[in-house]
Order: sequence, then C-alpha cells, then structure tokens
Amino acid sequence: MDDIRKLIETWARAVHEGDLAQVTAHHTDDIVMFDVPPPYEGVRGIDAYRASWPGFFEWQRSGAVFDIEELQVVEGADVAFAFAVARCADAGDDSPVRLRLTFGLTKADGAWQIAHEHHSFPHQQA
Amino acid sequence: MDDIRKLIETWARAVHEGDLAQVTAHHTDDIVMFDVPPPYEGVRGIDAYRASWPGFFEWQRSGAVFDIEELQVVEGADVAFAFAVARCADAGDDSPVRLRLTFGLTKADGAWQIAHEHHSFPHQQA
Repeated sequence: MDDIRKLIETWARAVHEGDLAQVTAHHTDDIVMFDVPPPYEGVRGIDAYRASWPGFFEWQRSGAVFDIEELQVVEGADVAFAFAVARCADAGDDSPVRLRLTFGLTKADGAWQIAHEHHSFPHQQA
Repeated sequence: MDDIRKLIETWARAVHEGDLAQVTAHHTDDIVMFDVPPPYEGVRGIDAYRASWPGFFEWQRSGAVFDIEELQVVEGADVAFAFAVARCADAGDDSPVRLRLTFGLTKADGAWQIAHEHHSFPHQQA
C-alpha cells in the first residue's frame, strides 16, 4: 500500500512540476485515462497520455496548484485501485471544489503500474 | 471476469429500471461514489449511496437511456477495477458525448462487491 501511495504522490508532484518523464514513468502501454477535457472516450495509450500533458504543465507553471488532500488505496496481490481528492486550481482560487481522481493499477515484475486514470470535477449546476 | 461483467451489466440495467434493491445489492458499506453532481467529495456510505438514486430513476422513467457501450474489467484474486463508457441521455438526444464510469471492487466471502464508483462527463468548453 505504501508503494502505491508513494507512486501516486510522486506522480502528483511531477504533475505540478511539469516533469513529463516522472509523470509517465509508471504507466502501462495501454493506459486509458478519462480526462477532464474531451474526448469523452478518454486518452488511450501511453503516447496519447504523454501528449496530453504539456498544456496542463503550462497552466501549473503559471501559478496553479495540484495537491492531493485525501488518498485511499485498496491493494490486492496484483491488482489495486485508489481514489483521491485534490486541489487543482489557480493559486488565488479559494473555491471549495476539488478534483476527483481514480486510479486502476496492475503489478508486473514486482512493480505497480497505472493502467487506468479517471479525472473529473463535479458537474456544476447552471 | 465474467462475474464482474455480469454484476456491472446487471447494475446498469437496474439503474435504468429504477430497481433500487438491485442497484445497491453488491456494494460495500463504505462505498465512495464520485458522482456527476456535487458534492465534490462524493457520496460516502451505503445509506448515502441509496439516497442518491431516486432523482436519477425519475429522470430515467421519463424516457432517458442508460446503456453501457464498452466495458473493460481488470481482475485480480481479491481486488479488481473496471471502466466503462455509457450512453446516458434523454431518449431523443443524439449527442456523441458519453458518461464515463470507473468501478473499484473487492471480494468478500467469494463474492465481488463494488467499493468505489466514479461517474463523470467530460468538461465541455464554454
């Protein structure tokens, strides 16, 4: 459980720092990410996953934050999932709304890899 | 894998049919659902999960659809996750946008239970 917690916390820090190598260091080749922006069917495959990050990094560099506030991990022998609540906002934004993150992980050669991510904000009523 | 696939497909049918007993039949007491509507921190515990459904059932009865179009399951010995793309819309709505679903499952006494759900639509740009 500590390995997965560390993996996700390291990933989150790299997301904030714009470290693409670290962000993508522990993903399966067939990662499927349901991301906040379209397309609805998500980002599929490690190449598409890599390509999805630069715009987000640019925003983070402008002074935004990406901080995991709560992380729960449920770990089996070779499959696990985890979910988190994170602050993901402009630095001055004091909205209580948080990003919700879910991860699906598999173990290969003794090491955990992320095979699925789901990122979303709740739908704000108009 | 077939057990989990059947569990989720049965759940989805019950969601459409408004069958609360069936929708909530295979969940852990401490289920955490990140739902489409607020609150951002999700619906926590089986009582809150049960209470979250009636409004949705009413909408489904008005002629809406809830159909899983794609479902992938990754199953370990006692922990699993799954993700799906579903049509969730008014009957006449031909939008290509789909609901994204992620499930985290655990096995207890030989039976799979859903411990986590994450439902979202992609964020539409203004």
